[in-house]
Amino acid sequence: MTAYSPHKPLPIAHVPQWDFETDIAIIGFGATGASAAIEARKAGADVMLFERSSGSGGASALSGGEIYIGGGTDAQLAAGFADTVEDFTTYLKLASGPCVDEAKCELYGREALSHYQWLKDQGVPYRGNFLPGKVIEPTDDSTLIWSGSEAAAPFYKHAKPAPRGHVIQHMGWGGGRPLVDILEARARDLGTEIHVDARAVALITDGDRIAGAVVRIDNQDRFVRAHKGVVLATGGFVFNEAMRRKYCPESFRVNSPIGDKDDGIGIELGASVGGDPIHMDQFFTTCPWTIPEDQAYGVFVNVAGQRFINEDCYHGRVSRCAVDQPGGKVYLLLDSAHFTQPLDLAGITIAGTGETWEEVEAELEMPAGTLSATMHFYNTHAREGHDPLFDKQVPILKPLDQSPFVALECNFETSYFSFFTLGGLKTSADAEVLDRGGSPIPGLYAAGRCTSGLPAWGHGYSSGLSLADCTFFGRQAGRRAAA
Amino acid sequence: MTAYSPHKPLPIAHVPQWDFETDIAIIGFGATGASAAIEARKAGADVMLFERSSGSGGASALSGGEIYIGGGTDAQLAAGFADTVEDFTTYLKLASGPCVDEAKCELYGREALSHYQWLKDQGVPYRGNFLPGKVIEPTDDSTLIWSGSEAAAPFYKHAKPAPRGHVIQHMGWGGGRPLVDILEARARDLGTEIHVDARAVALITDGDRIAGAVVRIDNQDRFVRAHKGVVLATGGFVFNEAMRRKYCPESFRVNSPIGDKDDGIGIELGASVGGDPIHMDQFFTTCPWTIPEDQAYGVFVNVAGQRFINEDCYHGRVSRCAVDQPGGKVYLLLDSAHFTQPLDLAGITIAGTGETWEEVEAELEMPAGTLSATMHFYNTHAREGHDPLFDKQVPILKPLDQSPFVALECNFETSYFSFFTLGGLKTSADAEVLDRGGSPIPGLYAAGRCTSGLPAWGHGYSSGLSLADCTFFGRQAGRRAAA
Repeated sequence: MTAYSPHKPLPIAHVPQWDFETDIAIIGFGATGASAAIEARKAGADVMLFERSSGSGGASALSGGEIYIGGGTDAQLAAGFADTVEDFTTYLKLASGPCVDEAKCELYGREALSHYQWLKDQGVPYRGNFLPGKVIEPTDDSTLIWSGSEAAAPFYKHAKPAPRGHVIQHMGWGGGRPLVDILEARARDLGTEIHVDARAVALITDGDRIAGAVVRIDNQDRFVRAHKGVVLATGGFVFNEAMRRKYCPESFRVNSPIGDKDDGIGIELGASVGGDPIHMDQFFTTCPWTIPEDQAYGVFVNVAGQRFINEDCYHGRVSRCAVDQPGGKVYLLLDSAHFTQPLDLAGITIAGTGETWEEVEAELEMPAGTLSATMHFYNTHAREGHDPLFDKQVPILKPLDQSPFVALECNFETSYFSFFTLGGLKTSADAEVLDRGGSPIPGLYAAGRCTSGLPAWGHGYSSGLSLADCTFFGRQAGRRAAA
Repeated sequence: MTAYSPHKPLPIAHVPQWDFETDIAIIGFGATGASAAIEARKAGADVMLFERSSGSGGASALSGGEIYIGGGTDAQLAAGFADTVEDFTTYLKLASGPCVDEAKCELYGREALSHYQWLKDQGVPYRGNFLPGKVIEPTDDSTLIWSGSEAAAPFYKHAKPAPRGHVIQHMGWGGGRPLVDILEARARDLGTEIHVDARAVALITDGDRIAGAVVRIDNQDRFVRAHKGVVLATGGFVFNEAMRRKYCPESFRVNSPIGDKDDGIGIELGASVGGDPIHMDQFFTTCPWTIPEDQAYGVFVNVAGQRFINEDCYHGRVSRCAVDQPGGKVYLLLDSAHFTQPLDLAGITIAGTGETWEEVEAELEMPAGTLSATMHFYNTHAREGHDPLFDKQVPILKPLDQSPFVALECNFETSYFSFFTLGGLKTSADAEVLDRGGSPIPGLYAAGRCTSGLPAWGHGYSSGLSLADCTFFGRQAGRRAAA
């Protein structure tokens, strides 16, 4: 056995034999790989899919099965939200902040409604109803929720807010698994040849063109000839500590990676043939502080007793900004009208209580006139319905003045701050992997979290952006590779 | 003429002829290239140096000629600072924050004293005296200054403070030019063959080994055979907007790139043969807010009227943290005991004045009880000699209570926020360019700002770290290539 390396492609002249031959080899069987397979098969290409685990899923199957879709869906219209392509696209761009890929935002902005129809056509069920409130995933089988910062500053000033988190109809949390199951069934029905327990270890090059991949199956190297191309659909690198240390060191502030063996292999494979990893420092993180929902009415302060965010924006945006604060922790302040015991899972602890905010401040050993001053200022203005510092909006904006009061500690090390990486290969809106000069690498396509896509910026993340990216640009990859 | 690309190496088989032949080809003639040339020549290698400009200099010549050196130099000891290798190394690591390269910090920590001697041996003059106070560069010919955050929180708690900014003896600002001149003269005396107006456009590979470079001279492609290797010494990418957009998008918040044609070519050349650019999102920035020096006593608040930093730390650390604040600007608050007209160059404007902090607050149209509360809290504690929120230290910690008061606006777009990039190729402590798997690329070396080195983290920058990196690891590159 030769030791093949993800850092070094194998020239076709060195391939000892072809064990598999196909038009398109897809690496990874989450929502991205399944969507790519469906479209490539529909376009008439032979498709083999190689997945390192024993079955489909990936990080997609661990998600809520929520896809960020706007522009005026049936569910949006039924709930009274006349969303437009323009507002939707504007929001997508804002959510990517300084990392924006305008071409991807514009394409997805225009195509999201037809993508929604495509999902339905594959058999993904949508009840079509809207569940109001601050929820992370529906606890019933509702299928439209607020899943971002649309109604919060600064976003609402630039794009008319609408809920855009479209969740597969599924009772309770965990819609990702049934979503992938439906896409898998469709890919199989269409004749995708699926190989599990098959781990890609290197790409094969024919001059400048990607001609296939080396895959480890049953501890043997197998050589896959892909006449039309290879699609990388392997997810991010949240489980690769060495990559995180080099490319995303700030992520070590938080503690709970989410994913399924996401070791960055697709990024490394792409880079080995000249691919261009970008925005590798970006990551999503969230601490489930809005559960129970009453806690969503809380106010965050840092260890200096200062607020730092309008707390009505997306829980992950609040959490990401929290992790920027000094001191290793932030406090979530609540009054007795809003406090309920935090979720056990969250690891959020009670750090201080008091009959007054001054007592809470003293119990936290903060200097007099810090936290208490922050809360008096906040309450004074909240009673008048506005937040002059951060523009938090009613109805989430409420005075917290019913004693006793409590400070909950969200500790970056010991509370549950889940996270995953957002950086990856630079791809065109057609899912071609681009080299550092901006040219497509012939025969190489990628989508999902091994690329930098719609959810490019940790501070702007909204739920459903990643699955939108996986399914939509996964389809682009399959179509383009088959073309 | 063929169009060679920095994104794609030229295989040696395609080289039409050799125009130059040498042991070591150095690309770039700032302090890094000059230091590499000196050491390579001393080791007996033939050396050719190719510089795209018409003479030596690069960003090094635009600097203050200040090198960060510690561990107990003559100047430190004479000024009463018994600095140790341990404290020095600890500070170097803290200054790199999450981007730390421990091996480089440890090596430089141990070797800095002998590097200082080496600089003297090359003819770099040091008067050996210490100039106290908060200065950016000496205005006289003093040669030791505080140039970082050594005495400020949190650094002073972990490493005993000492001034470590060792500046070439030179009257006034701008010691970088004479420093490079001395190194250039030494490199020439030792027999380095220097080609100016010679721009590297591609590397040449012989299998896995770097065998030379393609260089444009007089609008002709020239082919350079380098038997022992190529040293990249080309600086960062602050003048390459496309690279900044992809790799360092936060840098678009600020406005004044510093450098000399720093277009990232060395990073691209290294990446084209498998090099591993890291920490590409990091940048240094500073607004000269400590000039006149009285202004160093000021307090910064963001647009919410909140402090965000202990203002006694390095001016660049304050500035970098300022740029993280929302709203596009921060305010520097001063009382009449400390206000003097800001430097014209700085583009710092008077945004509000008043007989009380409440009047200043009102003039800035901030809500009552924000900036004024911040200042009353600050003054109350400053009178007692402490800063409970950010641990600013005396003597910089002073109450600002002599009316009238002023708020100066440091605007990220319109004030002078100079900046340069810190990300670059990952190299070993021996200046070997490493591939993404961590193995050295045979025949390729790099140092200075085309690498990620000692100044790895924008928030921890200290003056002199970059020239330390350039000169010390430039020497490593020259020695290692010649070995």
